[in-house]
Parts: sequence; structure tokens; C-alpha cells
Amino acid sequence: MEMSARNRLKGTVKSLKEDGLMAQVTVELPDGQSITSIITRDAAQALSLQQGDTVYAIIKSTEVMIGK
Amino acid sequence: MEMSARNRLKGTVKSLKEDGLMAQVTVELPDGQSITSIITRDAAQALSLQQGDTVYAIIKSTEVMIGK
Amino acid sequence: MEMSARNRLKGTVKSLKEDGLMAQVTVELPDGQSITSIITRDAAQALSLQQGDTVYAIIKSTEVMIGK
Amino acid sequence: MEMSARNRLKGTVKSLKEDGLMAQVTVELPDGQSITSIITRDAAQALSLQQGDTVYAIIKSTEVMIGK
Amino acid sequence: MEMSARNRLKGTVKSLKEDGLMAQVTVELPDGQSITSIITRDAAQALSLQQGDTVYAIIKSTEVMIGK
Amino acid sequence: MEMSARNRLKGTVKSLKEDGLMAQVTVELPDGQSITSIITRDAAQALSLQQGDTVYAIIKSTEVMIGK
Repeated sequence: MEMSARNRLKGTVKSLKEDGLMAQVTVELPDGQSITSIITRDAAQALSLQQGDTVYAIIKSTEVMIGK
Repeated sequence: MEMSARNRLKGTVKSLKEDGLMAQVTVELPDGQSITSIITRDAAQALSLQQGDTVYAIIKSTEVMIGK
Repeated sequence: MEMSARNRLKGTVKSLKEDGLMAQVTVELPDGQSITSIITRDAAQALSLQQGDTVYAIIKSTEVMIGK
Repeated sequence: MEMSARNRLKGTVKSLKEDGLMAQVTVELPDGQSITSIITRDAAQALSLQQGDTVYAIIKSTEVMIGK
Repeated sequence: MEMSARNRLKGTVKSLKEDGLMAQVTVELPDGQSITSIITRDAAQALSLQQGDTVYAIIKSTEVMIGK
Repeated sequence: MEMSARNRLKGTVKSLKEDGLMAQVTVELPDGQSITSIITRDAAQALSLQQGDTVYAIIKSTEVMIGK
């Protein structure tokens, strides 16, 4: 399935924390920067996410702000 | 001012389009991946954004999805 | 690619309007209810969306409110 | 009060989980598809949500992505 | 209908701009601060918004960041 | 760093709850209205937020709905 979300940043799962209903996933990008995602625990388990996995951080463009 | 948004990805403005109320900014990251942002035209003009500017793509972690 | 977004509602494109940087897509669900999406024009064109297409409305669960 | 959010999908609360600060509500639509919402526990309790309740899943159109 | 969104800030429409698919509404709060909203033009017209209207700025709590 | 997010509402931290991965911050505005924010616990701790702090509630304009 192709998706409208313009942003798909490829990286590696650096850390994964699950607690209660939520999960916090930190993804390291090739340039060393990292991006943190908050998803549901159900979603993290459905993707059977693990440290070291190659994943994509997916972000709808209307959710991205710019700082300068 | 420090901000709660966990994600601040440093990059360079690759393209900037303004049309009506909105502006579309594409930021190239050091690893060659790029991220597109939709902000208001007012915001783009307040930041006097230009191609080649060093900027940060700022994203609240609850807005980041994961694909695998 | 599997995605963390929990919500994928299957429906049919009822209307598609493109104007400036944005596109407005209305998707009719099997039960007659419809859901409106605002995406970028680039995204609508990349998906070559057309009226009558079978599509999925994808929504991160943290973006869904409840009314009662 | 009338609201700007274009999307109000009527359905029935299928499941409700509360844990820590958050609550996860799954709403079944008439066509059998379901939609998951993450709200605060405070909000779930203020609405005194219960399984079987008729509710609306409310989503701002800028938060809806399209997959094809 | 009661809503899960925790934030309903009462104020007055200070300005309203419609262009293409979108509308930009600026709401002045009693303390003089103002809040800008981007909604669809359809939504603005459905609410028949006008300068001077008493309205509420409604924001899901997961969308609010903190700066210090 | 200047940010594209148009909305920065100045107020005082009225309450702060941390539980699991998340934190709930309630900010009181000068006019007595309050705004609730859900951020990560990491973010709340990085800002060393405390009751009584002067802070800003920061909201991207595409996340603000209007009720009338």
C-alpha cells in the first residue's frame, strides 16, 4: 500500500520502552541524528519491534514544524 | 526557550513553495534523506526562510509513526 | 511495509479537490459515513488519486478524539 | 457547540482500557471496521465511557492520511 | 455532545482569512494572547464564522507542547 | 531558535503528573482558562518542569480546531 505521508525516514531502532498503553521508540538515522516516536504498545507489539531493526519513521507533513 | 518536542532534525532548506495560506518546506538531512513540512505562509515569512538556510525540522514524538 | 498507525478505514474516494499546495479527499465508508482528509497536492498526485478509487483512511490513534 | 472537525464517525465502544495517564478506546463502526483512539484517562472518565456506549470518533481532517 | 479534547479556550474571532481549501482563524483570548487555527474552508463556512464571533479554540492535549 | 508554530500561550504550571512514559501538564493562562498538555516523561524531566513555573503552551496552528 502506498501512503500519502510524505516523510519516511529510514533508520535503526536504538531503544524501545513499553509501559502501560504506550511505547517509546527511538530511531537512529544514518547521519547520527535520532527521532523519538510515541505509539501504542499494541502497535509496537504488532510490528514485533526490536532493537536493531531497520524501520521507517513516518510523519505527515502537516505535523512537521520548522525552527531557525 | 527549551521545548518539550523531542525531535529536532538539523538540515538545509532544499525547496520552499508558498501558495495561499500555506507553505511547503523541504529540508534535506545530512544523510541525503529529506523531510517535508507544511506550515502557514505567515510562519515561513516570519522565519524569512530561504533555500540553503540551516534549519531544524521539529516534530512532537506523538506525531511520529513507525513502519517496518 | 507494516505501519504502527492502528486505524485503516477502507472506503471509496467520493470527491477530490486540489487547490494550491493542498488536496481535500473525501472517502465514503461502507456504512455510508464519510471521512475527509487534507493531504498535500504532491501526495494526492503521487497516489494518482481518482474518484471511485478504493483507498484507506489512515489515522494515528493519538489523533482520534471521542464525543458522547 | 458546533465544531470545525469535519470527521465524526458514529459507532459503539467495543473496548476501553485505562492505564496511567492514558486511555485506549476502540470504537466499532456500523460496517464492522473499528477505530482506536488514545485520549487521556481524565477525558475517558469525564465522558464516563463504557463498553456499549454510542459515541463519535472525531478527527481533524489534517490528521487523516490516505493509503492506496 | 461532550468531547474528549481537554482544551477549549474561549475567545473572540479577531481575523479570518479564506484561501483555496483552507481558512486561517485568529482567536483573541481574554488575556490579550491570541491563538491561530488552520481549518478547512468548508469548516469555516459550515460554522459561518465571522470577525467578532465568540468561539472556542479546541485542542487535543496530545498536540500541546511545552516551552520553558 | 525561532519556531514556525504560531501559538505560544504564556502561563503557569498548575499541575504536573508523571506516569509511565507520559506526563500531563496543566498550564493556567492569565485569564484563568487552563490548557492541558500530554508530553513524554523524558521531555518533562529535560525541562525540569515544576508547579509554578512560567511556561509556554506551544501548538501548531494545524492542530487547533474551532467550536462555535
